[in-house]
Amino acid sequence: MQFELTKEFLEEVRDLVQAKDSEKIRATLDELYPADITSVLYELDGEECKYVFNILDKSLDAQILSYIDEDTRTKFLKNFESKEIAEMMEFVDSDDAADILNEQPLRTREEVIGFIENKEKAQNILDLLRYEENTAGAIMAKEFVVTNVNWNVKHCIEEIRNQTAILEKLYTVYVVDQNEALVGHVSLKKIILATDYTKLLEIAETDVIYVETWMKSEEVADIMQKYDLDSIPVVNVQKKLVGMVTIDDVVDIIKERQEMDRQAMAGITEDIEEDDSVWMLTRARLPWLLIGMVGGLTGASFIGLFEKNLTLIPAMAFFIPLITATGGNVGVQSSSIVVQSLANRTFFEKNLGHRLIKVLMVGLINGLVLALLVFLANITLGQPIKLAFVVSIALLSVVMLASVMGTITPLVLDNFGINPAVASGPFITTTNDLLGLGVYFSVASMLYSL
Amino acid sequence: MQFELTKEFLEEVRDLVQAKDSEKIRATLDELYPADITSVLYELDGEECKYVFNILDKSLDAQILSYIDEDTRTKFLKNFESKEIAEMMEFVDSDDAADILNEQPLRTREEVIGFIENKEKAQNILDLLRYEENTAGAIMAKEFVVTNVNWNVKHCIEEIRNQTAILEKLYTVYVVDQNEALVGHVSLKKIILATDYTKLLEIAETDVIYVETWMKSEEVADIMQKYDLDSIPVVNVQKKLVGMVTIDDVVDIIKERQEMDRQAMAGITEDIEEDDSVWMLTRARLPWLLIGMVGGLTGASFIGLFEKNLTLIPAMAFFIPLITATGGNVGVQSSSIVVQSLANRTFFEKNLGHRLIKVLMVGLINGLVLALLVFLANITLGQPIKLAFVVSIALLSVVMLASVMGTITPLVLDNFGINPAVASGPFITTTNDLLGLGVYFSVASMLYSL
Repeated sequence: MQFELTKEFLEEVRDLVQAKDSEKIRATLDELYPADITSVLYELDGEECKYVFNILDKSLDAQILSYIDEDTRTKFLKNFESKEIAEMMEFVDSDDAADILNEQPLRTREEVIGFIENKEKAQNILDLLRYEENTAGAIMAKEFVVTNVNWNVKHCIEEIRNQTAILEKLYTVYVVDQNEALVGHVSLKKIILATDYTKLLEIAETDVIYVETWMKSEEVADIMQKYDLDSIPVVNVQKKLVGMVTIDDVVDIIKERQEMDRQAMAGITEDIEEDDSVWMLTRARLPWLLIGMVGGLTGASFIGLFEKNLTLIPAMAFFIPLITATGGNVGVQSSSIVVQSLANRTFFEKNLGHRLIKVLMVGLINGLVLALLVFLANITLGQPIKLAFVVSIALLSVVMLASVMGTITPLVLDNFGINPAVASGPFITTTNDLLGLGVYFSVASMLYSL
Repeated sequence: MQFELTKEFLEEVRDLVQAKDSEKIRATLDELYPADITSVLYELDGEECKYVFNILDKSLDAQILSYIDEDTRTKFLKNFESKEIAEMMEFVDSDDAADILNEQPLRTREEVIGFIENKEKAQNILDLLRYEENTAGAIMAKEFVVTNVNWNVKHCIEEIRNQTAILEKLYTVYVVDQNEALVGHVSLKKIILATDYTKLLEIAETDVIYVETWMKSEEVADIMQKYDLDSIPVVNVQKKLVGMVTIDDVVDIIKERQEMDRQAMAGITEDIEEDDSVWMLTRARLPWLLIGMVGGLTGASFIGLFEKNLTLIPAMAFFIPLITATGGNVGVQSSSIVVQSLANRTFFEKNLGHRLIKVLMVGLINGLVLALLVFLANITLGQPIKLAFVVSIALLSVVMLASVMGTITPLVLDNFGINPAVASGPFITTTNDLLGLGVYFSVASMLYSL
């Protein structure tokens, strides 16, 4: 039952497209789910895609459009006139339409909205475009079933029948009063089990958890997860019901946050993918490399201060990578544990003092184990005992310091509204490199001057 | 409407618990959602929690239990007898019950199942416990509405009425034939809109996407996301319908994968949280630190081979951190881009050659920019021109090499069934440190011997 895109199948489709055999293309693709047609289109070039698109039903095109990833979609839609895009928009939910139009240049966006024949939909899309990105208002759907507090089940079912054509998925029915203010919601299950003349208010859940348009989408996702909700109503400042966020939006938000965190940890400054151009990939990677470079040059100048020591004891240089790498590893470990805590925020902030005491204890144990092993290794390898002491003391200090830095940095960043995951990236390794060098050479100066 | 846990409220609850005023505790907590009661309980100690638990309804207890995180729950349930746990299990879905019991020692698990009065539920839980962790069978719910292919809508609604008590959420109704084999599914929307005597088969969608019990839960999540499904039926090898996976399971799977990736990138070997004991935190962190240590000591021995060069040109040591840090940063960037590609796997594997050519081009541009800037900085800072050349050539080579390593490593790991995110962790930085040192000192030996 599940479709596997094979080379043979793809060849077949390509041949049909080349032969412009529209009948056969339609018959072949009709057997697939829209998501699978999308994966076929990914493998065709722009011209071929456009040809297939024109053959398929506009409603199918619209579904495919909402499956395509953002970058590809932007490129792809360049092949179409605003009027053609508008036709497709008639078949997608207004929140998807708003997303798609948001990716277009301003002019195309306005033209498309002008061409949309369903004026209510055009208005809905315009409404959604008004909200700031990543707020409940921007991600909510405008398509949902609204019923009045005075209606009975029969009336409600008629309303579902009227609105059902525009509804991709039906989760719950919302109940509002004369002022369009949210009163409650009724699950489909309750509607099925009630008799025709039951008043909606009798079966409605009136203790509703809702969010407001201005709330951050991450906050919406957190609330929906906390209360285990499939959908949540969105109200405006006048408490009027204006939209609904569903759990598939939550999935998108979580995945987006995940990619942002991964990029922050990897020191990548833009949302890039392997498919992007060499130029985009370079631009996304260079900034953190430059910061690392400045750190490296600062480190070089710093070591330069100890040139005399190095001339006397060249073996000191041997352990520079050990010290810096350990500092980096410990820093990333500590910060990522804090980042995880911040992501699963509970109500009471953990006490900074407790956090530090704990992380210092863990650092102490890890540091002692490493310092001891390295000491033994150095003695075994025949390094002078004084150098072995310097290295192990520096190592222990670096582990403790990096633990503290790794714990404090994400908390500080978070406090300033910066993604704390940045602290687990090149930032912490660069800082800890410098810190490590400072500790190492200071310890060395002290011990050798004894 | 949203509950904020304040210090005052918590004090109040604590005082009531101390005073054993069960009436007032029940009245106070009854106004809260189960998720909010859970966050109150997090702030009480074991004894206090147990007292509150005994006061509340068993069904509420059961809901709270499914909200608590795994670690806390395991600790918490130690306060209860198997018989008491069994009573709570009557009120949770069998998949949640199986999760909870899986966390218990084998003996408690068997005792609890023995005490469960609803024998069908006990059997369902036993069924679920049979499946390997992280498979569709282990995560599926056994509570769903099954109807027969010959029924009409009226009969179906009666069945919903019968089963509804045990159903937390109703997504869709499944249709099976005489052999319990899956035939199709009907959305609640269609049931509402159909007349009583419509045959289910007429309104059922018979082209169903399903998964099999043995499939990996990540695969299930991918399929549900790809086809944009709220729920998916699970069949066994005989194609009998045995369960259902819902989109909130997908949310859990995505979040789990996210935490695993973060841990892999940070070099943490176990699933730990800031709350865990110092011992657990140490145990999770030490292994990668030890690997880093071995890397550092190897690096030390390697630099030792060039002790003579260092004695002659101590300034060579200055740039060790720059070289190793840049290699590490580039390696992590490259690998995390590949890891992201692997996570959003398309049908056709990207060609390794293309991947490498692209990453080498990006590496070349980044490397040239860095090498040039570092060269200028070194000349400005008055380093000898020969050393400036050595550093910049080494830097460019390291960037290129680290790009290739960072691209190949996750692909190789993935090929061996290891989480490719490991490649973005201490693994890549340790390897690249050694690689960087190798390149740096080789280039130096060559250029200085000219």
